[in-house]
Amino acid sequence: MKAQVLKTYDEKLAGDRWVVEENVPDPKIVKSTDVIVRVGGAGVCRTDLHIIEGVWKPHMDPTGDQLLPLIMGHENAGWIEEVGKEVEGLKRGDPVIVHPKITGGTCLACRRGFDMHGPGKFPGLDCDGGYAEFICTSERNIVPLPRTLAPKEVAPYADAGLTAYRAVKKATRHLLPGESCVVIGAGGLGHIGIQCLKAMCAADVIVVDKSDASLALAAKSGADKTVKADGNEVEAVLELTGGVGAEAVIDFVGEKGTTSKGLKMTRPMGSYYIVGYGEDIKIPTVDLIISERNIIGNLVGTWAELTELMALADRGLVHLATAEYKLSEANQALHDLNAGKIHGRAVLIP
Amino acid sequence: MKAQVLKTYDEKLAGDRWVVEENVPDPKIVKSTDVIVRVGGAGVCRTDLHIIEGVWKPHMDPTGDQLLPLIMGHENAGWIEEVGKEVEGLKRGDPVIVHPKITGGTCLACRRGFDMHGPGKFPGLDCDGGYAEFICTSERNIVPLPRTLAPKEVAPYADAGLTAYRAVKKATRHLLPGESCVVIGAGGLGHIGIQCLKAMCAADVIVVDKSDASLALAAKSGADKTVKADGNEVEAVLELTGGVGAEAVIDFVGEKGTTSKGLKMTRPMGSYYIVGYGEDIKIPTVDLIISERNIIGNLVGTWAELTELMALADRGLVHLATAEYKLSEANQALHDLNAGKIHGRAVLIP
Amino acid sequence: MKAQVLKTYDEKLAGDRWVVEENVPDPKIVKSTDVIVRVGGAGVCRTDLHIIEGVWKPHMDPTGDQLLPLIMGHENAGWIEEVGKEVEGLKRGDPVIVHPKITGGTCLACRRGFDMHGPGKFPGLDCDGGYAEFICTSERNIVPLPRTLAPKEVAPYADAGLTAYRAVKKATRHLLPGESCVVIGAGGLGHIGIQCLKAMCAADVIVVDKSDASLALAAKSGADKTVKADGNEVEAVLELTGGVGAEAVIDFVGEKGTTSKGLKMTRPMGSYYIVGYGEDIKIPTVDLIISERNIIGNLVGTWAELTELMALADRGLVHLATAEYKLSEANQALHDLNAGKIHGRAVLIP
Amino acid sequence: MKAQVLKTYDEKLAGDRWVVEENVPDPKIVKSTDVIVRVGGAGVCRTDLHIIEGVWKPHMDPTGDQLLPLIMGHENAGWIEEVGKEVEGLKRGDPVIVHPKITGGTCLACRRGFDMHGPGKFPGLDCDGGYAEFICTSERNIVPLPRTLAPKEVAPYADAGLTAYRAVKKATRHLLPGESCVVIGAGGLGHIGIQCLKAMCAADVIVVDKSDASLALAAKSGADKTVKADGNEVEAVLELTGGVGAEAVIDFVGEKGTTSKGLKMTRPMGSYYIVGYGEDIKIPTVDLIISERNIIGNLVGTWAELTELMALADRGLVHLATAEYKLSEANQALHDLNAGKIHGRAVLIP
Repeated sequence: MKAQVLKTYDEKLAGDRWVVEENVPDPKIVKSTDVIVRVGGAGVCRTDLHIIEGVWKPHMDPTGDQLLPLIMGHENAGWIEEVGKEVEGLKRGDPVIVHPKITGGTCLACRRGFDMHGPGKFPGLDCDGGYAEFICTSERNIVPLPRTLAPKEVAPYADAGLTAYRAVKKATRHLLPGESCVVIGAGGLGHIGIQCLKAMCAADVIVVDKSDASLALAAKSGADKTVKADGNEVEAVLELTGGVGAEAVIDFVGEKGTTSKGLKMTRPMGSYYIVGYGEDIKIPTVDLIISERNIIGNLVGTWAELTELMALADRGLVHLATAEYKLSEANQALHDLNAGKIHGRAVLIP
Repeated sequence: MKAQVLKTYDEKLAGDRWVVEENVPDPKIVKSTDVIVRVGGAGVCRTDLHIIEGVWKPHMDPTGDQLLPLIMGHENAGWIEEVGKEVEGLKRGDPVIVHPKITGGTCLACRRGFDMHGPGKFPGLDCDGGYAEFICTSERNIVPLPRTLAPKEVAPYADAGLTAYRAVKKATRHLLPGESCVVIGAGGLGHIGIQCLKAMCAADVIVVDKSDASLALAAKSGADKTVKADGNEVEAVLELTGGVGAEAVIDFVGEKGTTSKGLKMTRPMGSYYIVGYGEDIKIPTVDLIISERNIIGNLVGTWAELTELMALADRGLVHLATAEYKLSEANQALHDLNAGKIHGRAVLIP
Repeated sequence: MKAQVLKTYDEKLAGDRWVVEENVPDPKIVKSTDVIVRVGGAGVCRTDLHIIEGVWKPHMDPTGDQLLPLIMGHENAGWIEEVGKEVEGLKRGDPVIVHPKITGGTCLACRRGFDMHGPGKFPGLDCDGGYAEFICTSERNIVPLPRTLAPKEVAPYADAGLTAYRAVKKATRHLLPGESCVVIGAGGLGHIGIQCLKAMCAADVIVVDKSDASLALAAKSGADKTVKADGNEVEAVLELTGGVGAEAVIDFVGEKGTTSKGLKMTRPMGSYYIVGYGEDIKIPTVDLIISERNIIGNLVGTWAELTELMALADRGLVHLATAEYKLSEANQALHDLNAGKIHGRAVLIP
Repeated sequence: MKAQVLKTYDEKLAGDRWVVEENVPDPKIVKSTDVIVRVGGAGVCRTDLHIIEGVWKPHMDPTGDQLLPLIMGHENAGWIEEVGKEVEGLKRGDPVIVHPKITGGTCLACRRGFDMHGPGKFPGLDCDGGYAEFICTSERNIVPLPRTLAPKEVAPYADAGLTAYRAVKKATRHLLPGESCVVIGAGGLGHIGIQCLKAMCAADVIVVDKSDASLALAAKSGADKTVKADGNEVEAVLELTGGVGAEAVIDFVGEKGTTSKGLKMTRPMGSYYIVGYGEDIKIPTVDLIISERNIIGNLVGTWAELTELMALADRGLVHLATAEYKLSEANQALHDLNAGKIHGRAVLIP
């Protein structure tokens, strides 16, 4: 099959061609629960840029250069192509979205429903992913799609959307009418998060971003109020929240100062949800204690949460802004993302 | 002041004039935290009919005929008229809604936020209520109204709305996208409940009622699906829920067979919320166990929950259908209610 | 292998020999995740008597007499004998306890951790169980035992213990110091439940039973107070709980009037947990509403909960009272149970 | 009355006499809900040293030197001396412990049960406290003591104990059998926290401290395992927790590197509870995200939680190690505390 392959790291992202199109062997069914999916769309994620830079090497390939060549692509949707002999209920041609973490299903984390915390593989990060015509995954990773949803339109939900959803879901479990939720960053994750918030709770949603285009997307996504991140965004949020801040702050950026600003926007007893990453969180202990605030880490969601997100999409309660590229245009998509030219999410289509 | 006074019970509701207009002394400030409210609107509730029938006598007046004469009216809103000398932050003319239960604020239930479970008085049931020009309540019962909300438009939220809100809120704490919530009864409480559900979660809302007019109100209130209660409503709900029933069923009727039907509409691991009352719940223990279902009792809400409901109303997320009557028309309003002629809630206006 | 086989129902439990010892074929590995366990102990449960009576036929064998002959026994522990070819981490000889419900692991209930709510088989009820030398189960049902625990000593935890644990766990998630929990019935389940309660929360544990021997077992198991069920048990519990009842009541009996008594022992805002079964629950809706009480159904627990219970047993925080019988003495064990001669739980040992 | 008065700050804690004994006017009832308590014991807290240093001035006295002279002492118990004219249910001589924060009871935080988050006064920090014969508080701050508990034995529960209790309670709401909880610091708060943990959950309690005497107190308080903080404490905890860390880590120190070590002891999906204060928390965002860990701030507890803690003490489930001093020995007690000579908590007795 055709695939876009990462063959060498490019620490400064200085080159023109980060991935190379090659003909590689089709993936094969090995275990009785394996599933081959014909890729209908593969999301292009900022994490892919970090992989190219080598940032993830220590986590995904701790023993050295065993990882490359690698087919990236951890946000995949498509159609069932072939199933292992003990797979039930799935047949060739079924449209599906693929949960990104392959786990065994027998560890305690999996058995409690927190599959992404079990040991396993993450195709596109530590084994071959979806920048290709086919991908091998497991029966446990398959979420069938309703007829309303086409694979290429939903692929980025598999990781970006799911991560946004899980953080938002945690916040909606405590957000009550009359309370506020600040969303920092109305990009690929943020614009999904805003829609999930509006669908799942009645809190006032205040969106902070430095880009007017992103704030416009935020407003279209349902934000009750938007705040330009012009240096006075903390004061602006405090003014919108009675001087005390919001009960929940969800930070989809996590760099360039958003963590300290986000914490200042969080009211006493409130929670600051960190989703984006890059900088360090730094806060005096006494500040957390006097105000009794929480800092909540967020990873991608569970398989069950992916079904919940698909239920939102199926009902038209969330809609994903996508930019389509051919698989052969992978380098273009990655460069456009790096240049900040993509609003919403890029998707590669074989 | 003028008041509509209940002087004798009428067990069969056979009479023409259940309450009598009289001139009675104005209420007086006694404690330093007392508050006199000029009534702007007093909701007329089915419970008022039950009080006239004498149904509540054993609960509210266990030692005999001490209760009458009584001014009914437990759903009140208006304007601050006078405050006790240690009341802070409230001044004459402020528009307010009145939480119905007067409690001391020092018992463990109050201190945990469950004020309606503390010992206290319930004006309109065991002391004089709001079918009058003024009512005496306590600082702890006052929820200031935003400028968007007029007392006469919101009075029924004080009890009917608050009860619906609390039951719905419990359900929304566990309802997830892709799940369903059945609402039985789209009347005064139900039509508020439906709107709260739509504002606070993304579950599919299925409304069951026997009246076409109520189902039309349900649809207008945001119901995703409506089911006519024609004898096959259980089967209809099962068909809409994949054969298994809904994760939450909220029964605002509680009589004429809705309890057993509601339980049959509740899926395994689901919860049946009982709000309306009248009949007995009867179910084999084994049926609850095999399916691990819950039956959840619901009382009126807390003071904090009344502020949450007002936040929803302020944002236009819930709207109350009201029928206005003059205070002098109290008997007409009560008879119209008894005759099933009121859609939404009747309100008396002094 | 040798097995004790149920060949015909005995609706009145009138016969001498309810099960018959036979030589039957050994179970075989079919799926790649199947596991054969050499039985070290099989708990004898009151449900087994109900199976013999035919009570479970409508649930487990709805289409007629397909079920018999059946090897009963749904509380099993032993040693790994053989595993399917994709089973990892288990090897012959490992001591294990067997979760009673075999499920596929891919449905939404399973994926959320509520395995016992997924579709599947329940060996001993709808396919062959552990009154035998070997039993076939699945990789997903295996909980390895720590060295401190021998199979024959823990087998009844697989269902009886797990059911008690799950109900208790739910209660301990809300029980706080200064609150009370009533346990109705200090038998096989109850004496485990009492120990779990004492290990997992600081509530006062009040145990109600009609048998002095059971109350003695309750006291030994850690009950703070015991109440003889002599007809005045409701009044006795109210007196021990400030006149209002307990925040949690766990009813391990569910027949002969315990349900209405248990509900009367439940305080406002409290929850009545029904575990035992037999009679109908019957309560006026108004009684649930005025007091805002809940009725909580309880099924056997999850796989994860079985690991939690084993953690308690491993630490010596729960101890199971067992009476050992040889597998060949199955009829004796069943008759002793029926005659009320067993304190704790009977276990069959091949 | 006699009181120990702070008249000037001592930033380096260099002086001999930080407080001065003076005769000051007795406090007087002003509001109808005021309560005067005759002090039976006043806890001496590390926060008192910080007040003397002037550390709290920016929080408690933002506009300058208005605060001094101040009577410190925020952990008080004693006997009712006099009550305002609308106080019910309390009479002279009743033994009581005093919740430290005086709040109005009408704000949303108070009404939801989170009284310590409402606006108000904190005697001993921003108005006169309990280093005196009498203290003025409010009806809402009084928790009656059972006969088993003497004021001088329980005073430090009012703040130190309550703070430890609230953090522990949060952890016990999610800690399950088979999981672990690390306690960092077995001093005044820590030794109470350990006992509360053992009473309220079945998790393994691992205590880390650098002092052998404190580890001995930890063991006596019920710690399952103790770890000397000798520089390898992270590795030691990881070894005790299967290499992954504990589900909950409660840090009663919050300085000298415990925050980064505590976070390293926290397993994926686990929570790090910060109680002690001093240093900054500093952690890369990516570390919180990959592991989905939480950092939970903790303030003193609610009034209801103080009643829960007294229920534990009443039942003998927590015991406080105290060192008694006469009120006139306040300087000695403060210096002993500063010199690390006090094990448990010092109490001043008028």
